[in-house]
Amino acid sequence: MLNIELEKAVELMVKSIEEIKETEEIELIEACGRISAEDIYAPMNNPPFDRSPLDGYALIAEDTKGASRKNIKKLTVVECIFAGGYSERVLKKGEAVRIMTGAKIPKGANCVIRQENTNYGEDEVEIYEELREYSNYCFAGEDIKKEDVLIKKGQLLTYVHQGMLSSMGILKVKVKGTPRIGLIVTGDEVEIPGQQLKMGKIYDSNLHLLYSRLKEFGLKPIIAEIIGDSAERIGERISEIIQDVDLIITTGGVSVGQKDILHNVLELLNANRIFWKVNLKPGTPAMYSLYKNKPILSLSGNPFAALTTFELLGRPVLAKLSGNKNLQPKQVNGIMEDEFNKPSMRRRFIRAYFDNGKVRFLESKHSSGMLASMAGCNCLIDVHKGTKKLSKGDNINIVLI
Amino acid sequence: MLNIELEKAVELMVKSIEEIKETEEIELIEACGRISAEDIYAPMNNPPFDRSPLDGYALIAEDTKGASRKNIKKLTVVECIFAGGYSERVLKKGEAVRIMTGAKIPKGANCVIRQENTNYGEDEVEIYEELREYSNYCFAGEDIKKEDVLIKKGQLLTYVHQGMLSSMGILKVKVKGTPRIGLIVTGDEVEIPGQQLKMGKIYDSNLHLLYSRLKEFGLKPIIAEIIGDSAERIGERISEIIQDVDLIITTGGVSVGQKDILHNVLELLNANRIFWKVNLKPGTPAMYSLYKNKPILSLSGNPFAALTTFELLGRPVLAKLSGNKNLQPKQVNGIMEDEFNKPSMRRRFIRAYFDNGKVRFLESKHSSGMLASMAGCNCLIDVHKGTKKLSKGDNINIVLI
Repeated sequence: MLNIELEKAVELMVKSIEEIKETEEIELIEACGRISAEDIYAPMNNPPFDRSPLDGYALIAEDTKGASRKNIKKLTVVECIFAGGYSERVLKKGEAVRIMTGAKIPKGANCVIRQENTNYGEDEVEIYEELREYSNYCFAGEDIKKEDVLIKKGQLLTYVHQGMLSSMGILKVKVKGTPRIGLIVTGDEVEIPGQQLKMGKIYDSNLHLLYSRLKEFGLKPIIAEIIGDSAERIGERISEIIQDVDLIITTGGVSVGQKDILHNVLELLNANRIFWKVNLKPGTPAMYSLYKNKPILSLSGNPFAALTTFELLGRPVLAKLSGNKNLQPKQVNGIMEDEFNKPSMRRRFIRAYFDNGKVRFLESKHSSGMLASMAGCNCLIDVHKGTKKLSKGDNINIVLI
Repeated sequence: MLNIELEKAVELMVKSIEEIKETEEIELIEACGRISAEDIYAPMNNPPFDRSPLDGYALIAEDTKGASRKNIKKLTVVECIFAGGYSERVLKKGEAVRIMTGAKIPKGANCVIRQENTNYGEDEVEIYEELREYSNYCFAGEDIKKEDVLIKKGQLLTYVHQGMLSSMGILKVKVKGTPRIGLIVTGDEVEIPGQQLKMGKIYDSNLHLLYSRLKEFGLKPIIAEIIGDSAERIGERISEIIQDVDLIITTGGVSVGQKDILHNVLELLNANRIFWKVNLKPGTPAMYSLYKNKPILSLSGNPFAALTTFELLGRPVLAKLSGNKNLQPKQVNGIMEDEFNKPSMRRRFIRAYFDNGKVRFLESKHSSGMLASMAGCNCLIDVHKGTKKLSKGDNINIVLI
């Protein structure tokens, strides 16, 4: 398909691929940002035992009947239990156990009196209030019951889940594998930094840009290379690596010119081109194909365009492959704080800064197509086709990046 | 100081410490999320040479005078330059050079005609439009001028900066060191997962929770330990490690009880307690001290409280130490989508979910103080002291987490 809408492009891509099947078992401490590959059930209660929520005395509620500061009841303190300790004792009528926050409530006791409502007695304690059964009594499993579902399959694991799983004594988790990505930057003019720049050449930016962005998502590419402009060489390399990756992202060579060779590459490979050219700026000539059932997303070589289309087209592909919805581009509303006076014949995405509901442009002496103008920006304004201008106060759609 | 407001606590902490001085030189590819330790100036122009922004022919504007589809001018095509290539030739009147997007414009030429306005001639080309000097002509340094400031000292480096620096041929950057953090979880009841849980004990959650959260910020603790309830042992350990760290975070032992031993620890160390107890829930008993001029932030042992106060008190400390403003807790406004009917005698922070300006509670069967109830939440609602209820439609303050 040619010249399609962004939403159609995303639909076609997402439909053409499947979530990867691989799973791996990893240490809990490494699990942040990964996707759980299974339902995880609580192996135990939390708390694991009935415990005291405060510093006080465990006792039998009946022994406090009628107690008040004017009608003091006295109980014999038979033991003291700190958090981490416990007692085999079964409490009898007339007895109390000094107990600290988090400690296991001994058998026989059915409530805990707050120490502030006693005289803090060591051998004998004065009780100044009447308690009901199970007052200040925290039951085993009150937070998490054994067999409860702790984590659902497909859940993105965060530090909160890590804390929860640790409290269950769980140290390893089975997570989905991460998509293996091959990143190929094309262009005879592109040289890797560190070498002397030859006449007519420029240093790469796309490789660093996309590599680092992918790494931020926890998706460090397994292959990242700069290859020139030979369709044969690029095609060869793609067919060498295709079995080892779940996705290939290329930059450069997607327009129409003598050296826009990605078209030739796909022909040489006999790959299936799903679409070419998306109705948006920058990055219109983006292309998507399948080769041996693996997706190849081919972005424009202009860094600003490559970045924008990576966010808009690349992230939905990564979200689908990895089963991680959080990789989806995040769309929200914002209120314009600045003016944008250029009419937009076509849909375009312009870089801006979003903060607390408001959207403004960052001052920049750099032209809008340039990578430097992206520095500090955290969103793209979705300027709809035919928009004459954006005015201060307009409610707009933005994509967070 | 005792029982102070959150804002006062933050002010006292931030005033008591200095940004760390250490810097290190690292590979550009590792620089994402780090803070530049110096101004970085452009070592070269970008583009490094005058280049063509499109596929066409480089020529001398004067040669196109009066040209149109009805008044065709013809020029001799003397060479063809692809991106990455160049020519030593100096163009003469009557000559044109076939040139591709990104290629160096040869000397003598002062504009580029778009190929669509020619007959794509190979030896001779027909010119269908009149061009002005420097039409379709991209000057060296148009994006970035040599000696321009690319990055300011203190700038948080992102993938965009990485792409920019790569395009300048820069492969190493000098960045600020990251704060060295010691994390100490106290409590005789706390056991590390992987061991058999003894009667009366619970598995740790705070160590995993805070370790993972710090790691998310790129601040992996260099020491992370569970120590029991012996003030002597904890004090000993703190004095052993204090020279190797920039900050110690502890959890547990900050209330007032027989085993709330952080007070004794600080006394043993002769540390300077700056404040104890902050007017907020959960995590009221948070404490902050200086020992050998190093900050010790002591949080409550309840995981939900530890987490909340880490976000509210810990992050400003980390932001100051690391010189990374992005570590500051991010405060924004939101509109309540749900009701919250409990009156708040004191200021409290409740966990919720923020999306596109709206705030709602996640359904949870877990009690509000529990860690499990945090799962999936991404903000804390700042419920001001004396608030009777929060109603749907209320404009509220939230802290993003």
